[in-house]
Amino acid sequence: MHFTSEQRLDNGVLEREFTLGEIPGILWTPGSASATAPAPLILLGHPPLGLHRMYPRLVARALHAAADGFAAATIELPGSGDRPRWPAADQARADLRRAMEAGEPVSDEIIDALILPLVEKSVPEWQAALDALLSLPEIGGPVGYSGGVISIGVRLAVVEPRIVAAGLFAGSFVPRAMFEEARQVTIPLHVLLQWDDEGNDRQAALDLFDAFGSKEKTLHANMGGHTGVPQFAGDDAAGFFARHLK
Amino acid sequence: MHFTSEQRLDNGVLEREFTLGEIPGILWTPGSASATAPAPLILLGHPPLGLHRMYPRLVARALHAAADGFAAATIELPGSGDRPRWPAADQARADLRRAMEAGEPVSDEIIDALILPLVEKSVPEWQAALDALLSLPEIGGPVGYSGGVISIGVRLAVVEPRIVAAGLFAGSFVPRAMFEEARQVTIPLHVLLQWDDEGNDRQAALDLFDAFGSKEKTLHANMGGHTGVPQFAGDDAAGFFARHLK
Repeated sequence: MHFTSEQRLDNGVLEREFTLGEIPGILWTPGSASATAPAPLILLGHPPLGLHRMYPRLVARALHAAADGFAAATIELPGSGDRPRWPAADQARADLRRAMEAGEPVSDEIIDALILPLVEKSVPEWQAALDALLSLPEIGGPVGYSGGVISIGVRLAVVEPRIVAAGLFAGSFVPRAMFEEARQVTIPLHVLLQWDDEGNDRQAALDLFDAFGSKEKTLHANMGGHTGVPQFAGDDAAGFFARHLK
Repeated sequence: MHFTSEQRLDNGVLEREFTLGEIPGILWTPGSASATAPAPLILLGHPPLGLHRMYPRLVARALHAAADGFAAATIELPGSGDRPRWPAADQARADLRRAMEAGEPVSDEIIDALILPLVEKSVPEWQAALDALLSLPEIGGPVGYSGGVISIGVRLAVVEPRIVAAGLFAGSFVPRAMFEEARQVTIPLHVLLQWDDEGNDRQAALDLFDAFGSKEKTLHANMGGHTGVPQFAGDDAAGFFARHLK
C-alpha cells in the first residue's frame, strides 16, 4: 500500500489517496482530536461508476464516519475509473441498458453476467485492502462495510470474519444465487431500500431482506428515488454503525 | 377535562390522570427545566388492552418523549379497561380468536367487525381529547400521533389537520377500506413493522405502506416478534418526531 497524496479536510480529517498494486483507493482518518486510539473502520462500497464520479458522495459519508470517530476507506472496482477496461463487464452493462431501454424484463442471465464476475473479482480485492488498512497503526477495528453493490456486501459478510456489521443498499440487481448466500449471513445488518427506485426490483429487495440469516436485521425504506436517500436515513445508518463498531 | 391525580416521575416529568366525560386518560408533561414554553404534544396510541395493562410501555414512551421536550397523552379506548364493556367488540375479538386458534385465514368480515367500529368510535374521542389538551397553557403544538391500532392512526391522519406527523405500528389487522383511506394521507409518516410478527400479515403491512399518499414516508422493519421492537427502533422514531414537531 503506497500513499500517493494527502490533504486535510474539515475538522482535521486526513484524506489520503493510495494504491494497492494496481488498485487506487482513498483512506480518511479522523482529525487528531478524536484520534487518540486506533479507529474502527468502515469500508465504503459504491457502484461501478468510478471513484472520481462517486467522490462527492463518498467524502460526505467519510466525513460523517469521521465525526463519529471512525476511519473510512474505499477502493476502485475492477473495470471502473482509471483501472483497465473490463470488456466482459462493459458487455454486460450494454446488455442491461439495451434490455431496459427496450422495456424488456431484465433476465437472470443479464443479472448474473453483470454481478457475479464483479463479486468474484472485487471481494478478494476488498479483503486485500483490509489486510493493508488494518496493518496501519491508526486503524484498529472492528470493521463495518457500508453501501455499494449489495451482492458484494453479502459475499463479504459471508466470507470475511473481520467485518462485524454491514449497512447495505438494496439498489442493485441481485443474482438468484445470492439469495442462498444471504441465508449464511449472521452479522447485524442495516438495509436501505428506496421504495420507488425506478431501476430496482422492490420485491427482490424484500425477498433478499427476508432471506438474510442475521438475528439483527433492519430494513429502512424511504421515498425519493435511487439517489434520493434522505439525510435522516444517513443519520440512522450512522447510528447503526455507532452501536456495532464501538 | 378533570385531573384526578398527579405525581412526579423521573426528571421531574409530571404525570396526571384525567377524565374527559366518561373517558379516562393520562397526560405527561416535561419537568420544569425543559418546560419554558408550551410543549409540542405526542398522542400515544395503544392496542385495546386497557390503559392499566399498557401502562409500563406507555410511561416508557412518555418519558422518552418528555426527554425530547414533548408532552404526551393517551386515552382509554372504547370497551377497554375501566370503560363499559362493548359487546360487539368482544364478539369480534372472540371471532378473531376462534379463527386464529382453528388455523383458519382471518376473513375480511372479521377484520372489518374488529377494526371499523373501533375507528368510528375512537377517532372523535381522540379529537375531543386534543381539543381539551391544546386548551392547557403548558401544551402548544404541533401534534404528533404515535403507535397503537394503525387504522385509528390512518383515520386521524386524514381527518385531523392538527396532527402534522404520525409514527404508526404496522402490527394490527387492516380493513380493505383503510387502503383507500391511506391514499389520502399526506403528512410525514414513520411506520414500524416487526418483520416476523406472528399475528400480523406482512404483505398487508407492505401494501398499506405503499398506499400512503405521503411524500415523506419511512418504513422501519425489524426482527423480534410483535412485542420485540428493539430499543434502537424507538430511538429512530424519536428522531422522526424531533424532526417534525420542533
